[in-house]
Amino acid sequence: MNRRMILYMPMQIIKLQALLMLLPAAVALCYGEDCWRYFVLCAAGAIAVAFAVTALLHPKFKAIYAKEGFVIVAITWALMSILGALPFVLSGEIPRFTDALFETVSGFTTTGASILRDVESMSRGMLFWRSFTHWLGGMGILVFFMAVVNLSDRPIHIMRAEMPGPIVGKLVPKARDTAKILYLIYIGLTVLEIVLLFAGGMPLFESAVHAMGTAGTGGFGVKSDSIAGYSPYLQWVITVFMLLFGVNFNIYFLLLIKKFRSALTSTELWVYLGIFAAASTAIAFNLHSAALYDSTADLVRDSAFQVSSIMTTTGFATADFDLWPGMSKALLLFLMLVGACAGSTGGGLKVSRVLILGKAIRRELKKMLHPRSVTVLRLEGKPLEESVISNTLTYFVVYCVISGLVFLLICLDKFNLETAVSATIACFNNIGPAFGAAGPTCNYADFSILSKLVLSAAMLLGRLEIFPILLALSPVTWMKK
Amino acid sequence: MNRRMILYMPMQIIKLQALLMLLPAAVALCYGEDCWRYFVLCAAGAIAVAFAVTALLHPKFKAIYAKEGFVIVAITWALMSILGALPFVLSGEIPRFTDALFETVSGFTTTGASILRDVESMSRGMLFWRSFTHWLGGMGILVFFMAVVNLSDRPIHIMRAEMPGPIVGKLVPKARDTAKILYLIYIGLTVLEIVLLFAGGMPLFESAVHAMGTAGTGGFGVKSDSIAGYSPYLQWVITVFMLLFGVNFNIYFLLLIKKFRSALTSTELWVYLGIFAAASTAIAFNLHSAALYDSTADLVRDSAFQVSSIMTTTGFATADFDLWPGMSKALLLFLMLVGACAGSTGGGLKVSRVLILGKAIRRELKKMLHPRSVTVLRLEGKPLEESVISNTLTYFVVYCVISGLVFLLICLDKFNLETAVSATIACFNNIGPAFGAAGPTCNYADFSILSKLVLSAAMLLGRLEIFPILLALSPVTWMKK
Repeated sequence: MNRRMILYMPMQIIKLQALLMLLPAAVALCYGEDCWRYFVLCAAGAIAVAFAVTALLHPKFKAIYAKEGFVIVAITWALMSILGALPFVLSGEIPRFTDALFETVSGFTTTGASILRDVESMSRGMLFWRSFTHWLGGMGILVFFMAVVNLSDRPIHIMRAEMPGPIVGKLVPKARDTAKILYLIYIGLTVLEIVLLFAGGMPLFESAVHAMGTAGTGGFGVKSDSIAGYSPYLQWVITVFMLLFGVNFNIYFLLLIKKFRSALTSTELWVYLGIFAAASTAIAFNLHSAALYDSTADLVRDSAFQVSSIMTTTGFATADFDLWPGMSKALLLFLMLVGACAGSTGGGLKVSRVLILGKAIRRELKKMLHPRSVTVLRLEGKPLEESVISNTLTYFVVYCVISGLVFLLICLDKFNLETAVSATIACFNNIGPAFGAAGPTCNYADFSILSKLVLSAAMLLGRLEIFPILLALSPVTWMKK
Repeated sequence: MNRRMILYMPMQIIKLQALLMLLPAAVALCYGEDCWRYFVLCAAGAIAVAFAVTALLHPKFKAIYAKEGFVIVAITWALMSILGALPFVLSGEIPRFTDALFETVSGFTTTGASILRDVESMSRGMLFWRSFTHWLGGMGILVFFMAVVNLSDRPIHIMRAEMPGPIVGKLVPKARDTAKILYLIYIGLTVLEIVLLFAGGMPLFESAVHAMGTAGTGGFGVKSDSIAGYSPYLQWVITVFMLLFGVNFNIYFLLLIKKFRSALTSTELWVYLGIFAAASTAIAFNLHSAALYDSTADLVRDSAFQVSSIMTTTGFATADFDLWPGMSKALLLFLMLVGACAGSTGGGLKVSRVLILGKAIRRELKKMLHPRSVTVLRLEGKPLEESVISNTLTYFVVYCVISGLVFLLICLDKFNLETAVSATIACFNNIGPAFGAAGPTCNYADFSILSKLVLSAAMLLGRLEIFPILLALSPVTWMKK
């Protein structure tokens, strides 16, 4: 274990985060708000501490392995959440530290669950910072760092630990170049969305905030009614962009290098779009039969928006889906679990994991009929390694166990079973709004301190796909050989 | 595929079932009830049909393999549920066929979920039959048949398909002798419970019915308030016997042949008892802090009874646990999922599966730290085959998928999320009472016909551990090589 790297690397990221905190300070200054000083104060303090630690702990060698990769990612995300929460507390806009931590973790993990009772009373600087955490967390802050500086001898282990999905591959031979390409696509799509929103009449600040919320599949907005107050055009733009950010970024890379055939024959892509189409249609019919809408255009737009928002784990809303009929709510709950594509900024189990699980089930049934049969499973035309299959199966079990434990702890709170189940699922899968007391028109302010801490942990576990945090907390990791 | 055996064997079981239906007829006659005639009528009809079919379809060779084993078990359970439902319908005591089918499937699968609004108005003959289905389904009717006659050349495939748990082993070299031993232990324990209940002042009929309900871990009783009206002594006797029937029967066999050391060092046994002790204690403290009880003796008895009843998947009740605090309800929901030991009459995932899943997770974490490490997992001192591990992991995934699909269909009904979730779990894991509209003081009468059919299918899938039914329904099974 390269113990020095384990503290050195997170401190390098803290320096980067401190620099990035000057951006909301600039926004605050532009709008003549006072809160810029808190960002500068936090940034200065963080940089001082980080330089002191890195000077003391300069590692002799920079090589890291899988083990260090997991631990570095876990520690970095914990530290950057704490630093990110400080401006909210110092400015007094979110006075309690647990609340500010919940909001920041929710931001970085692109969950979008909020404890703000009145989002419209917040300063623009803070609102910008809140949404900027979505954007940074979406593609991964360590991956961002990788793209900017040469941070270690084997950066692929960092990338594997921070990027979601069962298989993290490099697009190009060098992990660093892969990180650069991913961030360029990410920036390009975000800018395109800002332009389209601004062109549709949304003010620039709101366009930027909503584009960052969409890009990270986060869901923090600037209005109490989320996206419901905007025009149909703006709602459709966001619907489409949420879907786009839920696609595996490899597809965009393949399109960029003109490998259209490989890009458009991706099984995961078509299953993902198929689930979107099927779920929107089913919910539209369910809403139609419940006679909740007068206008068919509203009905279609609302079902498409909510399905896109929930399955990409964004969490924006244009309707109070907590009032929808049971069947629609149950479908949304399923979409929360499935989530978006691997290698996207979305959360949940990921479509490719669901595909691997389905294939594993088929193979097991076949094996029960013909015990001596041997089948190699394939995904996207390539054979799946047995270790990926068993890792995916085990991941699913751990995923269920953690959901169960979080649910059990949330049950200690005063809410009913529906709220406890859906809040657990919505936080662990990084969606945000749930049902009942955590529904789209409500917030997480009334949850107990214990619940907020448990849900914050659940959001981190969900975003980092469990294993990095479990490994960082496991004594075996820290034992000397 | 030995197609003749696939119809021949179930018809043989139908003959046996017809004979066994004369027992409730005898009970009805003893109590001077008219309903005996319906049992005799059904038995006569079934025997006539079964003899006709077996005469036409006499198989040339009796050899069966894994494939036939699964299909035979699935078909047998479907047919015997239909036959078992007929006396209820013909007598008019449960006039609607879907209701009668639900009640019979619930009986054979040892679920104990009832559609009866007023169980006390039923005739004794019908009540006896209802509880007798628990007893027959508990250890498996095909296993019973195996113990009585020599039914095929390779009965182990039948046993594997009908007996629950990840690994079904033979106690003695011959599967038929194993079946005999299991049934002798089963009968012995049942008789012992009848004697202890009768000695405590419970009338003989009620003692027999409750002992059969306990033995099969079913939960059908004869009173609307289940076991709440009986004395503390009787409640404790049932608490202990529910626990005993949730133990792997191999343990009793080891005790009988005086291998005390092997019996008492079983990991599964101690984990099972540990879960019981921990859950009862936690619930007792939770109830104490909610100040729901005046007497400590009542509190301890009620928590021990409910925990024993739910974790063994029996479903008797001495308290309306739907009114308990959220934490206690959440714990009960977990116990429903874990279930009892493999090789017992209880349902759920089974403790040994949970142990295997836990070991698989530990191994996966270790593998992530040391990618080249190779670990052989062990259970009860023996190495676990890789095929058992991957089968268990896949089983868990299928288990979750089916729970989800059943839940989705139940959401079409008019109940809230709590009722839909808990009814799904309570039926699929063969418990019976759930929460909300399916709570211990309620029943399943108000569910729609679709819900009743879906829950009946869920009960069968749960009891037969999914794969036999999936395989029987899969086209691959029926294709010629």
